[in-house]
Amino acid sequence: MNGPDDTGLNCPVPSSGSDRVLIAHGGGGRLMHRLIEDYFLAELANPWLLERHDGALLEVGTVRLAFTTDAYVVRPLFFPGGDIGRLAVFGTVNDLAVCGARPLYLSASFILEEGFPISTLHQIVRSVRDAACRANVAIVTGDTKVVEKGKGHDLFITTAGVGIVEGSYCIGPRFVEPGDMILLSGDVGRHGIAIMAARESLAFQTTLESDCAPLADLVGSVLKAGVNIHCMRDLTRGGLASALVEIAHTSGRSLEFAEDAVPVAEEVRGACELLGLDPLYVACEGRCVLFCPAHQAEQALERLRADPLGQNAAIIGKVLDVPPPPRVTRISRLGTRRLVDLPAGEQLPRIC
Amino acid sequence: MNGPDDTGLNCPVPSSGSDRVLIAHGGGGRLMHRLIEDYFLAELANPWLLERHDGALLEVGTVRLAFTTDAYVVRPLFFPGGDIGRLAVFGTVNDLAVCGARPLYLSASFILEEGFPISTLHQIVRSVRDAACRANVAIVTGDTKVVEKGKGHDLFITTAGVGIVEGSYCIGPRFVEPGDMILLSGDVGRHGIAIMAARESLAFQTTLESDCAPLADLVGSVLKAGVNIHCMRDLTRGGLASALVEIAHTSGRSLEFAEDAVPVAEEVRGACELLGLDPLYVACEGRCVLFCPAHQAEQALERLRADPLGQNAAIIGKVLDVPPPPRVTRISRLGTRRLVDLPAGEQLPRIC
Repeated sequence: MNGPDDTGLNCPVPSSGSDRVLIAHGGGGRLMHRLIEDYFLAELANPWLLERHDGALLEVGTVRLAFTTDAYVVRPLFFPGGDIGRLAVFGTVNDLAVCGARPLYLSASFILEEGFPISTLHQIVRSVRDAACRANVAIVTGDTKVVEKGKGHDLFITTAGVGIVEGSYCIGPRFVEPGDMILLSGDVGRHGIAIMAARESLAFQTTLESDCAPLADLVGSVLKAGVNIHCMRDLTRGGLASALVEIAHTSGRSLEFAEDAVPVAEEVRGACELLGLDPLYVACEGRCVLFCPAHQAEQALERLRADPLGQNAAIIGKVLDVPPPPRVTRISRLGTRRLVDLPAGEQLPRIC
Repeated sequence: MNGPDDTGLNCPVPSSGSDRVLIAHGGGGRLMHRLIEDYFLAELANPWLLERHDGALLEVGTVRLAFTTDAYVVRPLFFPGGDIGRLAVFGTVNDLAVCGARPLYLSASFILEEGFPISTLHQIVRSVRDAACRANVAIVTGDTKVVEKGKGHDLFITTAGVGIVEGSYCIGPRFVEPGDMILLSGDVGRHGIAIMAARESLAFQTTLESDCAPLADLVGSVLKAGVNIHCMRDLTRGGLASALVEIAHTSGRSLEFAEDAVPVAEEVRGACELLGLDPLYVACEGRCVLFCPAHQAEQALERLRADPLGQNAAIIGKVLDVPPPPRVTRISRLGTRRLVDLPAGEQLPRIC
């Protein structure tokens, strides 16, 4: 079932049949990976893009910067624990944080659909303001475009962010080393389940809120403690499993983790059972994985747990010293081992 | 007909009747100005946004950076002289250039509509690549989202850009001074007319191409010559007239310019007459205005004209030393004077 490298990344992908963009191309799975590799990376290839990191590390004069962008198309616009404005700020802040940067400045670009209520826009702009305040960043530049009714969907927001890398960190998939321990900053899947519950009028009752949160302080405290983080990634589309597969593929390293070391809230687990979903693939918006040398893992864990956003942090696995191809293996409670693959798409579109 | 400051910026605007976003909110005129002032600036106000410049000037460590963003929703995707990919690169490059920065790095974020042909996407990505190459910038980070069919429009691109400000320039509307001369880098209106011709199957035949071009080298050569540029702005939605009104309003200075000093290509003039348009309000994508001290104006003009993109450059007017309110006056060939106002919207939506 798996392709040459067993990560699913080089697998044949379902044909679109018509050379057209499918919803699954945006899902964080194999189809998206192939779209990015075959069209964006193949054409635009440069040292920054080829790092396949959450942002680009730039040297400008004497300063090391991180630079990143994301478009936000989540539906509904408002969901338990957040909204598109909050997500647009925290998502970009988190991409900077996992580059080892202190987020400083964000841009915000709005594409509005004709007929969208201005009062709702106002509410979302206020949410952007509050999120920027909480994450200690300034929205310093922006843009507004309007498209005809039926040619957009209420509003889309694209943020970009600039942060400063204050240490001499080398953080990214290619710095992952055999023996590194894999830490997870908290329980997984809250964002995805909160969105599904809000969107689908699901049969189950849940008070679950999105985990949408800014991770810069959490991650910064681990770095400041002197932990030599080799790689970080925030978990979004495709969840924990997809993030690990991507890191394995880019680093060329095999990883393994214990399923029962991965914290999952009871409500998320219950909803996943009801819906036939695997919580390891469900989106988060306030969680990250960290890779660091084994001798610093306990120290890193302690720092993570000292922050309210990291109180459920756990060491979930490690990087193996085995020959290629790179594989990700999940070990069940009973000790059985299964290869982890990328999904074709996402269980639910427009999650972020 | 004009409001308290005669620029049209504080005028009552046509009521939307329903507190909803109108196409004109994206047109670069009064409605857009009010939307930005009342909702974005009012909520997000900070020193960078309040500069009302094309980008933000940031001090990061010892380095001065410019940072900017724009969303691109132009239709059709391909037009004489360019396409959405080229526009997305050059537009952001130009916003950096008029901040006095050397553009270095761009992000590119794509929102794709389900069903969009991947071959067309590929063509646009190649155009982004070629434009980045021509403008000497690298696309270092990006994102891709997919929305359902009918919830987007083929594709939208949002770029953000980072550049370095290598001199100790102070460039922006608030540095405009009485006595400054106003220069225009080339003839106006080609982009808008090219888009109209491509979109509307107009009765007139034209071989006109968009002026879409990167301005960083042109502007850089004027700065390198030691010209003390006080303000620059690239002309996009709303054309030359809107750019001047905005600068007048932000700087608090009154401006005047001679209509017949403004270069307009014969084809643009002809098309405008046919369509009942004023070329001063028609969009450009490769033109800018520059404000500099009178004693340096000839030197600046010479530098502009030495570049193929600036061969039609002209001195078109000056900044007056008169009490507020700030006004923009156009002087006709016959010497008659008329106040220049912002349009309510744009003559044509989705021009950029």
